[in-house]
Amino acid sequence: MAVVLGANQYGKAEVRLVHVDRSTPRHALTDLTVTTQLRGEFSGTHLRGDNAAVLPTDTQKNTVYAFARRFGVGHVEDFAMRLARHFVDAQEAVTGARVEVEQHAWERIRVDGTDHDHAFRRPGGEVRTSVVTVDGDDAWVVSGLRDLVVLKSTGSEFHGFPRDGYTTLAETTDRVLATAVTARWRYSSPVLAAADDFGAAHAAIRTTLLEAFASLHSLALQQTLYAMGEAVLEQHPDVAEVRLSMPNKHHFVVDLSPFGLDNPNEVFVAADRPYGLIEGSVLRDDAPPAGRAWDSVPGFV
Amino acid sequence: MAVVLGANQYGKAEVRLVHVDRSTPRHALTDLTVTTQLRGEFSGTHLRGDNAAVLPTDTQKNTVYAFARRFGVGHVEDFAMRLARHFVDAQEAVTGARVEVEQHAWERIRVDGTDHDHAFRRPGGEVRTSVVTVDGDDAWVVSGLRDLVVLKSTGSEFHGFPRDGYTTLAETTDRVLATAVTARWRYSSPVLAAADDFGAAHAAIRTTLLEAFASLHSLALQQTLYAMGEAVLEQHPDVAEVRLSMPNKHHFVVDLSPFGLDNPNEVFVAADRPYGLIEGSVLRDDAPPAGRAWDSVPGFV
Amino acid sequence: MAVVLGANQYGKAEVRLVHVDRSTPRHALTDLTVTTQLRGEFSGTHLRGDNAAVLPTDTQKNTVYAFARRFGVGHVEDFAMRLARHFVDAQEAVTGARVEVEQHAWERIRVDGTDHDHAFRRPGGEVRTSVVTVDGDDAWVVSGLRDLVVLKSTGSEFHGFPRDGYTTLAETTDRVLATAVTARWRYSSPVLAAADDFGAAHAAIRTTLLEAFASLHSLALQQTLYAMGEAVLEQHPDVAEVRLSMPNKHHFVVDLSPFGLDNPNEVFVAADRPYGLIEGSVLRDDAPPAGRAWDSVPGFV
Amino acid sequence: MAVVLGANQYGKAEVRLVHVDRSTPRHALTDLTVTTQLRGEFSGTHLRGDNAAVLPTDTQKNTVYAFARRFGVGHVEDFAMRLARHFVDAQEAVTGARVEVEQHAWERIRVDGTDHDHAFRRPGGEVRTSVVTVDGDDAWVVSGLRDLVVLKSTGSEFHGFPRDGYTTLAETTDRVLATAVTARWRYSSPVLAAADDFGAAHAAIRTTLLEAFASLHSLALQQTLYAMGEAVLEQHPDVAEVRLSMPNKHHFVVDLSPFGLDNPNEVFVAADRPYGLIEGSVLRDDAPPAGRAWDSVPGFV
Repeated sequence: MAVVLGANQYGKAEVRLVHVDRSTPRHALTDLTVTTQLRGEFSGTHLRGDNAAVLPTDTQKNTVYAFARRFGVGHVEDFAMRLARHFVDAQEAVTGARVEVEQHAWERIRVDGTDHDHAFRRPGGEVRTSVVTVDGDDAWVVSGLRDLVVLKSTGSEFHGFPRDGYTTLAETTDRVLATAVTARWRYSSPVLAAADDFGAAHAAIRTTLLEAFASLHSLALQQTLYAMGEAVLEQHPDVAEVRLSMPNKHHFVVDLSPFGLDNPNEVFVAADRPYGLIEGSVLRDDAPPAGRAWDSVPGFV
Repeated sequence: MAVVLGANQYGKAEVRLVHVDRSTPRHALTDLTVTTQLRGEFSGTHLRGDNAAVLPTDTQKNTVYAFARRFGVGHVEDFAMRLARHFVDAQEAVTGARVEVEQHAWERIRVDGTDHDHAFRRPGGEVRTSVVTVDGDDAWVVSGLRDLVVLKSTGSEFHGFPRDGYTTLAETTDRVLATAVTARWRYSSPVLAAADDFGAAHAAIRTTLLEAFASLHSLALQQTLYAMGEAVLEQHPDVAEVRLSMPNKHHFVVDLSPFGLDNPNEVFVAADRPYGLIEGSVLRDDAPPAGRAWDSVPGFV
Repeated sequence: MAVVLGANQYGKAEVRLVHVDRSTPRHALTDLTVTTQLRGEFSGTHLRGDNAAVLPTDTQKNTVYAFARRFGVGHVEDFAMRLARHFVDAQEAVTGARVEVEQHAWERIRVDGTDHDHAFRRPGGEVRTSVVTVDGDDAWVVSGLRDLVVLKSTGSEFHGFPRDGYTTLAETTDRVLATAVTARWRYSSPVLAAADDFGAAHAAIRTTLLEAFASLHSLALQQTLYAMGEAVLEQHPDVAEVRLSMPNKHHFVVDLSPFGLDNPNEVFVAADRPYGLIEGSVLRDDAPPAGRAWDSVPGFV
Repeated sequence: MAVVLGANQYGKAEVRLVHVDRSTPRHALTDLTVTTQLRGEFSGTHLRGDNAAVLPTDTQKNTVYAFARRFGVGHVEDFAMRLARHFVDAQEAVTGARVEVEQHAWERIRVDGTDHDHAFRRPGGEVRTSVVTVDGDDAWVVSGLRDLVVLKSTGSEFHGFPRDGYTTLAETTDRVLATAVTARWRYSSPVLAAADDFGAAHAAIRTTLLEAFASLHSLALQQTLYAMGEAVLEQHPDVAEVRLSMPNKHHFVVDLSPFGLDNPNEVFVAADRPYGLIEGSVLRDDAPPAGRAWDSVPGFV
């Protein structure tokens, strides 16, 4: 028996970059959290503390900031790809890179009915995500969003499930359905079809997800999940696969009968824990192989 | 020397209430986190474990849910007042009550350009707050908001400050100014002037705060804070006092000169900690006494 | 009517300072989060953006680090007092200062049964707190702790409470009692009696709190709270007042009867929200006035 | 092209279970957060909302509580395995299950120098983790810990790294090294060798990790990571593989020269973000295949 080094990667996590485009008086704001991870032949540092192949994580951070100035930021997928390619091309020991970018939205503040040129409000909550993976000459782009919190106050049922000796749940034909969507979609190619860009694609797919959630009369959160993924694939030919992780954020009807009150689905407890957790992948049957696209992406395989 | 019981209160914290108004097919959603606190003569339980005066916190929780069904919710200030009055009126030992309500906004999901009747999205981030205090026959209403994150990419300076042996900060005539506003305003009376309600007042004051932040060319975050409070008092006669707590969320210009790049206020690090913290009260010189309005409100006195 | 500036303060929040005492090969580690707040005549900056009186928060941060090197850290109360006095003495506009220090504990890692000289483990959880307030020549010291999570699996009852139309809670003579203690105690004087120091006092008071929690057969969390405060006052003559905030972290007995099982207080749900919240002050009847000791300390008044 | 359902799973997340063993007056406390996930043939619910195969997540929660009473809890790995096997054996549609258990430690409170029978303190911070995966007749056990925060105040160097046009980092032969260890180790078999149990194994491996961290004179955090994994494999024959994720929690030496002070590695800023992130696997060259052991475990692949 011998002990060996297995898979490994290293980098700088959560580099906070805010970029202001001041090319006109109407400033544009981009707010990112960037994580870089390098892969390659790093046995020297692990086994002997020989750092000849270890580009410092501090350098990776500097590169993020310098690239923002040198090339601008643009769409987060493009920014991540430029960084990932740079690390693979520039360092001999580095054979792969993974760059994850989260984007935090900002909206203009309205003053007297007009959007302000340089004053902004950060809505908070939902985050746009992007993971670009480069492995030698190959590359994959996974885009997504997290913390998209949605709720239907009716149009959701749950019944027909099996009952065993531990089942006490009542069947229902009308319940509140709420979730915080984490969606990630893998593009078939790191280059989108003509006449589209990653920003427009993201906005369109997000709309599709919301509309599918709202429109489906749901018999199970799994059915909603699948319908959301299916709608994305049907409407967006650039997408090969959608992975969704959707907690069932339970809203329980409060029993008000001890107080002489009925409760016709009007007053609910929003519970914290535990919660159902529904996870699934929806994909084209002719999707190209995922390769390393999903490596290190948290969640189910 | 003897040991005595000082000020005390107890109640149920963070009751999660979601109310669905289903009176028409177009549902309305109210999402609240409610904390109740009772004050009065509770020495028996503290000194001897005699609970004859201790209305259980579980009962307080039940009351929140039952009132939501019995009376509806309406504006959070009204809901809080009804609860506070109830506890003081119904329990002999209870001489005062404090009810804090936080409201989490939901927006309708748009489907094919139309707002959906019963599907919603929770934007996250900013929270509407309300603290109602009843003490015998007296009552106070403090409303507010927290986590309103705003930023100006220019129009902010900071110079002219004193320098001592520990000062290294450079003066600047153009910096990013960002903060997460916590604002609380005390109304002169728990009853608003005619033709207004707490919901409309909150929306209007929030707009005033945003516009003041955006419009002032700032020489100091303190100046911005004061201008925001002043604008509220000038435009909203129902308000007696505004208290603001505003962290200075530093955005530092990255020094890119080691990489042969300039950085004309374009690439910034958004820092987490430490942060400046600016807190202040702005009030009318003829404001009625605050009484117990601010008791247990976190922040400076 | 005129708008005026009310109470205000500003400073640097959450300065993260780690100090290593390397005077011997056996290093000592002090890990602090420091917040400074200055009070005084700051109307110029609020009203006109005139910063002539505004010692930058950046300078305050620098002072924290420089003092750690120049004077060492020592007990957190002493460190906070030195900083607070410095700001009041050095700046003409500054008439008062509040310095809050939180200390994060580290323990030595044991290797082969021996404590290591320079390798440490941070236990996490509980935090030691300290708030020093200076106002002109006056000064107050409030020390404390937060997130001290404790539980009794028996020896706790709750019954004899009033029942109204919203009461459904069952009485119990045996329940789990759990809480996360926030305790703050005000010393009678900023100078302790001879033969004691703030570190030893803190450790002793913490032991008293834990022993009182464990030893009392509790009829109400309020009784436990009072007993904990009373024990501190009886055993520690330097302390004038104790304020405690204790959430009742509910552990509900799971009803297993649907599964043909009893549950003799053995299997519990640990609930997140809502939770009871019990807050109270216990003090000497001859305690010196609190002055500004509790200003800006979050929690009930 | 057709849209198809890919990998999927569902279950109940973060079931909070506290178990009190009251078989003697000296109570024992077990505090767990349990997540169950089922895998199998669930296309009906995804495609048509047919829930005939969907054992409710509520039932899964009930099963956790009922099993705690029926069989006791014991070591978390055994508890997780019993649950996972149950779901696979009892439900025809279920072909696999994943049960994740996190254990929160409690210590007895000392009163007058003696450990109390039924009063406990929860240290917080570090968490013991366990993931058991069953797939048909196969089973894997991955145990671990997270949030084990450690620091060396000396005995750490970093130099000899490559420099490119974005490198500004200085080389150092003496730095603070701090990290929050997440370690997960895969046992070669779900049954440990005789004379050991999962609790004892966990405690022993944890000690090995701490001792290895403390003892190695570190030339890189990667070297420390590898040494920690290697030590576990050398000292614990039941372990086939160790995966470690270790953020480099930077402690920067504060430049005090502007204040006329030196800083011989004594005063540090503990930075929040960004941080280095070092991840790697160390394994035996004859380790049995990992199978599905690591599915859904967050972190690098």
